[in-house]
Amino acid sequence: MEFHLWKQDKDIGARLGEIWTSHGVVQTPVFMPVGTRGTVKGLTPEDLHSLGAEILLANTYHLWLRPGADLVRAMGGLRRFMHWDGPLLTDSGGYQVFSLAPTREIGEDGVVFQSHLDGSRHFLTPEGVIRIQEALGADIIMCLDECTPYPAGRDYVQASMERTLRWARRCKQAHTGNEQALFGIVQGGMYEELRRACVEGLVEMDFAGYALGGLSVGEPKEAMMEVARGALPQLPNDKPRYVMGVGTPEDLVELVGSGADMFDCVLPTRNARNGMLFTSGGRIVIKNRQHRDEDMAIDEHCSCYTCRHYSRAYLRHLFMSKEILAYRLNTIHNLWYFLELMRQMRRAIAGGAYKEFRQHFYQQRRVQTGS
Amino acid sequence: MEFHLWKQDKDIGARLGEIWTSHGVVQTPVFMPVGTRGTVKGLTPEDLHSLGAEILLANTYHLWLRPGADLVRAMGGLRRFMHWDGPLLTDSGGYQVFSLAPTREIGEDGVVFQSHLDGSRHFLTPEGVIRIQEALGADIIMCLDECTPYPAGRDYVQASMERTLRWARRCKQAHTGNEQALFGIVQGGMYEELRRACVEGLVEMDFAGYALGGLSVGEPKEAMMEVARGALPQLPNDKPRYVMGVGTPEDLVELVGSGADMFDCVLPTRNARNGMLFTSGGRIVIKNRQHRDEDMAIDEHCSCYTCRHYSRAYLRHLFMSKEILAYRLNTIHNLWYFLELMRQMRRAIAGGAYKEFRQHFYQQRRVQTGS
Repeated sequence: MEFHLWKQDKDIGARLGEIWTSHGVVQTPVFMPVGTRGTVKGLTPEDLHSLGAEILLANTYHLWLRPGADLVRAMGGLRRFMHWDGPLLTDSGGYQVFSLAPTREIGEDGVVFQSHLDGSRHFLTPEGVIRIQEALGADIIMCLDECTPYPAGRDYVQASMERTLRWARRCKQAHTGNEQALFGIVQGGMYEELRRACVEGLVEMDFAGYALGGLSVGEPKEAMMEVARGALPQLPNDKPRYVMGVGTPEDLVELVGSGADMFDCVLPTRNARNGMLFTSGGRIVIKNRQHRDEDMAIDEHCSCYTCRHYSRAYLRHLFMSKEILAYRLNTIHNLWYFLELMRQMRRAIAGGAYKEFRQHFYQQRRVQTGS
Repeated sequence: MEFHLWKQDKDIGARLGEIWTSHGVVQTPVFMPVGTRGTVKGLTPEDLHSLGAEILLANTYHLWLRPGADLVRAMGGLRRFMHWDGPLLTDSGGYQVFSLAPTREIGEDGVVFQSHLDGSRHFLTPEGVIRIQEALGADIIMCLDECTPYPAGRDYVQASMERTLRWARRCKQAHTGNEQALFGIVQGGMYEELRRACVEGLVEMDFAGYALGGLSVGEPKEAMMEVARGALPQLPNDKPRYVMGVGTPEDLVELVGSGADMFDCVLPTRNARNGMLFTSGGRIVIKNRQHRDEDMAIDEHCSCYTCRHYSRAYLRHLFMSKEILAYRLNTIHNLWYFLELMRQMRRAIAGGAYKEFRQHFYQQRRVQTGS
């Protein structure tokens, strides 16, 4: 993997770059659609290409439990298994162990947890996580970290962050392949000095990229932004900076402005399935009765497949009838919204006009919502 | 609507033709995918075009109850509402009233029934059914009939069939538009002479096409075939012959051989969602453990999108994980199987080799299942 930084805004931190993988080029800043179990729910890889998605994220935790990493390896790796020919990133499973497993016990060696599928017990170690991700075969893989809960006291967060550093070192040592790029994950909760210490520890180990973890875990938005804005400039300039599990369109606009290059979040896809759709003027809830006979697109400014061909009235009908196509068409729209937003941001950075873009982004919402 | 009969097999009844509608040409014999609520579950119209679907069926009963015929009319009709630019057929809702409504009461004027959605009471008359179908705006519409249950005594079936004839006359009178072609429906249960009487009554009224109704309602397969084989040759040669709600691949091969031109059935789409997939060698159940690590297509002889790109192992993984994409990929395969089977039959009729095709069809299954 190579990272090329083409441009950086002088006044603010916004960066324009490219990640070169052996399976294609990813233009940054980038939003990665989440394909938890080896599928972005409801969409084919061809759909994702049409939307302009250049890299997907898949979840190691889910795929390890079912269908199993050995099976995926035997099928030629996850890319071939799921028929995705572009770049791919897998997470470490750490976050899911902390958010999904019914019980877990963390030790120095790793974490014992119960499967959310059948309650069976599993043991995840830094070395194991690397082996699993090597079996899945993504282009970018992640270190095992402890995703510190919020709120948490300083002593706990410090001990946890230091263990995350030791795990990162073990991941680095266990990772012998050259094909896959390994990223380190910055923890440290809401404590600025712990985040800084974690960054320093990771940078010393020299990873291919760096991620901010432990954000969007229940903390106030301002705290999240403060931590991210504090940590991003500390990360090496010549490596991709990935803010994990974030975020809303507003979060993306702010964090790109602070120098973030990569994002993933279930927000567009999960909200689509719940009937919550993003528009340039804000969000709409498709099941609301006001949309019953609206012969207009979700967003008049949108040129996605769904907005080009279907009315709100039809989408509401599909959603009320629990038709599968509702989830697919809504997902296409929401993902297009996120990916188009990233394209707009990249164009703005390229044109040296990120500040103006940001201003316009907020203005559009104020105008259309009348607030 | 015009029907052109291009060729008819000399020895057997198999026919090759075209239905010309103002929205496109339908090559017959044809299988119509079922889009109950204005969507073939999980697929876009573009998917359906790719599969080679030339005409769809939508259910009047469902669309009338939700979102309502007036709403669909206000949205420019069902074709525009659902973004389908090809020919479309709506049924009369008669079958659904008898199969889905929790309670119903049939009178001379029409049928009172409860909605399966909310228990509300509705009244469906022959005139009402025509008005609703005119609002939906399909190219081909159907008369209201009573779908006689099986088994039923001769007296009941005769009275029911005669009412179906009177309803057909009222539908014909109520239908004033020229754009839509109205088909009559033959009832008469399993009684050959009642079917014959119904055919005679309908033909006298001169419909644009004729359908066999009341089949596949629980009767033995031989009885269904006997009734269909008896009635099909009695129908006018110069009008399309439609066997409603049928059937399995074997049914289609047999009935095309007996001169049927049109079919619809939920079998390929519903079975797809249940993980039952059609192959040239018979059926497979994708959740079976034997498919867990099979790195092969559903059907090696199939060239559908699903078979070109996905292994049984991946499809089983999606199905076990209840992933939306499972239903979509399975539906694509099963519909392709049915539509490809129709293409093969049309080629065989065109080449004057339907008997040989039929023989090969059964032979292939015997070879591949080893039976």
